[in-house]
Amino acid sequence: MQIAVLLYEGFTSLDAVGPYEILSRLPGAETVLVAKTAGPVRNDQGSLALVADRALADVPRPDVVLVPGGPETRRAMHDPEIRAWLRTADATSTWTTSVCTGALLLAAAGLLDGRRATTHWLAREELRALGAEPTAERVVFDGKYVTAAGVSSGIDMGLHLLGRIAGDDAAMTVQLLTEYDPRPPYDAGSPEKAPAHLVAHWRGQSAADPG
Amino acid sequence: MQIAVLLYEGFTSLDAVGPYEILSRLPGAETVLVAKTAGPVRNDQGSLALVADRALADVPRPDVVLVPGGPETRRAMHDPEIRAWLRTADATSTWTTSVCTGALLLAAAGLLDGRRATTHWLAREELRALGAEPTAERVVFDGKYVTAAGVSSGIDMGLHLLGRIAGDDAAMTVQLLTEYDPRPPYDAGSPEKAPAHLVAHWRGQSAADPG
Repeated sequence: MQIAVLLYEGFTSLDAVGPYEILSRLPGAETVLVAKTAGPVRNDQGSLALVADRALADVPRPDVVLVPGGPETRRAMHDPEIRAWLRTADATSTWTTSVCTGALLLAAAGLLDGRRATTHWLAREELRALGAEPTAERVVFDGKYVTAAGVSSGIDMGLHLLGRIAGDDAAMTVQLLTEYDPRPPYDAGSPEKAPAHLVAHWRGQSAADPG
Repeated sequence: MQIAVLLYEGFTSLDAVGPYEILSRLPGAETVLVAKTAGPVRNDQGSLALVADRALADVPRPDVVLVPGGPETRRAMHDPEIRAWLRTADATSTWTTSVCTGALLLAAAGLLDGRRATTHWLAREELRALGAEPTAERVVFDGKYVTAAGVSSGIDMGLHLLGRIAGDDAAMTVQLLTEYDPRPPYDAGSPEKAPAHLVAHWRGQSAADPG
């Protein structure tokens, strides 16, 4: 099984690395970071670069496609090479997945038409405009399409997906070894729970959606 | 404020990127990935490389030191250059922090003598042997030393630390924007909660501790 993680300039690092950390531990799987050209790809903050070990053209038929989000998704989704690769890879994939605004990229490639999907809470209407049916759930399965909400939700998606691929024991093993027993010090992780003034502030500038 | 994330061959990617994603969003902070030499540094799975933008010698006085774990911590902790950098950086840091077995590295550099600290659940006795007082907590503050348990716990640590540095609103903003409202599909993230046969299996081969 080959798992391909798409990188593009301005991706959000945890979107990619959260589910990577879970899925790359699947015994026997080959995980490969891919981008238009092989080499370093810088993130949205500018202070981190991940290395794409392979170019898109070298990974035409991954079993799992994973697309992270980021503010630059809006640029990447108009890139004909990225769109073409997503369509090609999706044609033979077992699972096509996204985290955060990565769903916009899948939708822009025409892969989420009429499908239930999730994305960053600030990007739901953008996702709807691209033909999907956005929901407020954290992880959404619609056939082979699996989408996760903002940034950190990719970890939950990774565990869901690993359970489907390899069974509950395999997924619980990875949860145990990554000690994923979350205890955030605040309960502000969704627009329903966070202080209203913070939510209102960010809704007011959703063009700057950070993730 | 300068935040330095230490990389070394065989680090665990989420150990570094989890707290990076939180702390790098601190307004006005400069976050820099550092290693013995600048350039790509490969992780424990072998399928991911992060780029160290600076060499250790170029970042002698970070305000925050962040040390990820990984199976290769045991090799890194005997590296005189890494130990010397940790001691130098710690001499002027405001916060010295670790995730997972990164605590072994801090302890091996003599920075956790007699201090309460946490690490991956499989590495607690190793941490004790290096002079610290291991606890089973997820995030431990002892003075300016902040340690987190296995892999994913670095995200919780990042939020705790961001709250101390920049206040609750800043930390809750980052929690909201990264949509950190975790909902793992299993409740197997600690040895107390995971199925006993999985815990027993891994206790039996702790030399292969993956974190």
